[in-house]
Amino acid sequence: MSAPTFETILLDRKDGIATITLNRPDRMNAFTGQMMMEMIQAFDITDADDSVKVVVVTGAGRAFCAGADLGSGDKTFDYAKQDGNPRDKFMVNGVYRDGGGLLTLRIYESLKPVIAAVNGAAVGIGVTMQLAMDIRLASTEAKFGFVFARRGITPEAASSWFLPRLVGLQQALEWCYTGRVFPAQEAKDGGLVRSLHAPEDLLPAAYALAREIADNAAPVSVALTRQLMYRNAGAPHPMDAHMSDSRAIMARGAQGDAKEGVMSFLEKRPPAYPDKVSSDLPDVWPYWEKREFK
Amino acid sequence: MSAPTFETILLDRKDGIATITLNRPDRMNAFTGQMMMEMIQAFDITDADDSVKVVVVTGAGRAFCAGADLGSGDKTFDYAKQDGNPRDKFMVNGVYRDGGGLLTLRIYESLKPVIAAVNGAAVGIGVTMQLAMDIRLASTEAKFGFVFARRGITPEAASSWFLPRLVGLQQALEWCYTGRVFPAQEAKDGGLVRSLHAPEDLLPAAYALAREIADNAAPVSVALTRQLMYRNAGAPHPMDAHMSDSRAIMARGAQGDAKEGVMSFLEKRPPAYPDKVSSDLPDVWPYWEKREFK
Amino acid sequence: MSAPTFETILLDRKDGIATITLNRPDRMNAFTGQMMMEMIQAFDITDADDSVKVVVVTGAGRAFCAGADLGSGDKTFDYAKQDGNPRDKFMVNGVYRDGGGLLTLRIYESLKPVIAAVNGAAVGIGVTMQLAMDIRLASTEAKFGFVFARRGITPEAASSWFLPRLVGLQQALEWCYTGRVFPAQEAKDGGLVRSLHAPEDLLPAAYALAREIADNAAPVSVALTRQLMYRNAGAPHPMDAHMSDSRAIMARGAQGDAKEGVMSFLEKRPPAYPDKVSSDLPDVWPYWEKREFK
Repeated sequence: MSAPTFETILLDRKDGIATITLNRPDRMNAFTGQMMMEMIQAFDITDADDSVKVVVVTGAGRAFCAGADLGSGDKTFDYAKQDGNPRDKFMVNGVYRDGGGLLTLRIYESLKPVIAAVNGAAVGIGVTMQLAMDIRLASTEAKFGFVFARRGITPEAASSWFLPRLVGLQQALEWCYTGRVFPAQEAKDGGLVRSLHAPEDLLPAAYALAREIADNAAPVSVALTRQLMYRNAGAPHPMDAHMSDSRAIMARGAQGDAKEGVMSFLEKRPPAYPDKVSSDLPDVWPYWEKREFK
Repeated sequence: MSAPTFETILLDRKDGIATITLNRPDRMNAFTGQMMMEMIQAFDITDADDSVKVVVVTGAGRAFCAGADLGSGDKTFDYAKQDGNPRDKFMVNGVYRDGGGLLTLRIYESLKPVIAAVNGAAVGIGVTMQLAMDIRLASTEAKFGFVFARRGITPEAASSWFLPRLVGLQQALEWCYTGRVFPAQEAKDGGLVRSLHAPEDLLPAAYALAREIADNAAPVSVALTRQLMYRNAGAPHPMDAHMSDSRAIMARGAQGDAKEGVMSFLEKRPPAYPDKVSSDLPDVWPYWEKREFK
Repeated sequence: MSAPTFETILLDRKDGIATITLNRPDRMNAFTGQMMMEMIQAFDITDADDSVKVVVVTGAGRAFCAGADLGSGDKTFDYAKQDGNPRDKFMVNGVYRDGGGLLTLRIYESLKPVIAAVNGAAVGIGVTMQLAMDIRLASTEAKFGFVFARRGITPEAASSWFLPRLVGLQQALEWCYTGRVFPAQEAKDGGLVRSLHAPEDLLPAAYALAREIADNAAPVSVALTRQLMYRNAGAPHPMDAHMSDSRAIMARGAQGDAKEGVMSFLEKRPPAYPDKVSSDLPDVWPYWEKREFK
């Protein structure tokens, strides 16, 4: 799939790693309906491109993403009054679908691992969008804020599912109740980000981690691991995991990657996995009911 | 709602913060059926009073709450043999309803954030009642104990839902299997309490955190955040969160608080939110099935 | 129940503590179908033996368990092509049941607490089997690896249910995506293991913790605590916990252990609990639907 021309993001693909850069630096990469749709398109592209093993998301300029663009002033969150807002199309049966959630649910379905390289301010949707990304590295200059209660609205982007699973209810509630903007160190101490880096070391660290995955792990195994982990993290009983991973082990054990994975290990050489995400991903969820909005 | 006269607790309301003080200091604030019912009443009052933005719970005297009152000796937990115990009324269809759970399920439904200021010993129900409170600060003199297995009974108050979500299964099981009484530092290291304070600094620290919420966050946003976070923390799929937070963002975005939240931010002044929890809380759960005891 | 003769493990029972030792030291205790079946048998024995209060699992020799035995080379995970593999019997309606999951689901049902004493390398099933054990202590010499993606397969043994609950999604995904083998300190920092010990101190530390449980906690209370914590950790709403723990408190409060627990505490003497797991464990799950593989 060739990439369309984007206006609010950049999409770069090189050496197995795709980079999505939020690209409205003059607006602190503030989030808009167009950015949401372009990011969703970008994940469609990275999913379809077998050369992409890992996706890195970062921001252009000083900020990661300063949150919703407040350019509409006191009508910013009053969607019913905004003619022509791209989010309008997300009314279904009279019920509005949150644009942040459409994005995080798309990232939830990504077949490639997603690493956030948080280079600067990440506020509102700028931080909740990260919760569906798998691993967060941050610059020591980054800051974070779940500021929704200070804007008179509420946490969105399905963050009430992701955040307590990432940092626990106690930390999640304190950040969301106070709405405070907090420094990178507090994000690290609270378990939100995995590691802190000097600004100039951030992208190299994110790419090093992406490299470790791209160079060693079978892409189909990684795609399945991602599905297993997120779906079963929400499942009530380990039997749910047993149903899906039994099928995954049986299907994968018979594919070429399992032979190559064992033999390259025994022969102490780099692996050359034959299977492709686009054609060889087994369906291990025949019993799984798709969750529909209601 | 004017406050009734309580015998086992105190309820104070001042400057937007309610304080519930467990008040049987000569009995280490040991828990009784009457205390349970009075605490439930107190949360009914704080929910109904729009002047209350945050609830702080603490104990009078040396202890926070020393657990069930063992004054009945070897009949303490033998409810069928206790005539006149207030808990008797909680038999429904021959099934006893645990009094600690009636309390924590009430706190789970609280529309105001709840901060525990753990001033001293918190043992048995004295610690499990805290699990439904959002944030726990403790005195360096506090101690904790999930002592149930040492009394021949089991963890109650729905603690098997809350505790593994707060501290993880490994820590939860060690504390409950051993039944050991442990110091505040172990509670902090294990993730149960958020911060430790010298005894004289505990209440000031709890009030400072309460102030940060009361002075900055829109109360209706906070009430919805609390519902979203607890319910979706238990939901199987982020789509559940998307269904409720889509409705929350749409409803809140059109209310006065969202206008005031954005404008006070842009104008760099303190907010004056117009919406009230008692009248302006939107129902974002039309699809949600109420959980009934069975 | 007298113990059968095992070939791949040892089972020792002494002073209330059972020790299961993975015992193929010349093969780094690599996992086989036979080892899986013998471990399941061992847990049947420890559950049925009222003298066993706690189970400790460790490895003979240098390793804990080096993972699947790769002796079959590139057919290792191709179960359909392995005549006579003991796992063959786990085909039901054409669907293979993962052997690692059969083991962890059995441990999930254990009526006794399980402590892993990780003495050395724990890789693949060698680490995922531990996830269903309650508490993990490790030697400073231990190392861990969720290496599945490097072998072209996927995490199994229901690990996608257990692991994110133990260490959070961010850490779980990084370990599983990279497939890296990591040292004991990283396992401790990430929350996988509870404590690190010099090699010669590992088993003494595990036995000291087991002793603390065996000497103080009522065994029936411990068995119920284990059920409550694992089942309700996966339940959607604290009402689920309230339904089971209400029944647990009512049943246990009337049994002899509750009287002995309170009286031994008041009399400051060691407890002598009369109730037995084999005969006195109440069923607090009449409403609980058994999860069947589908």
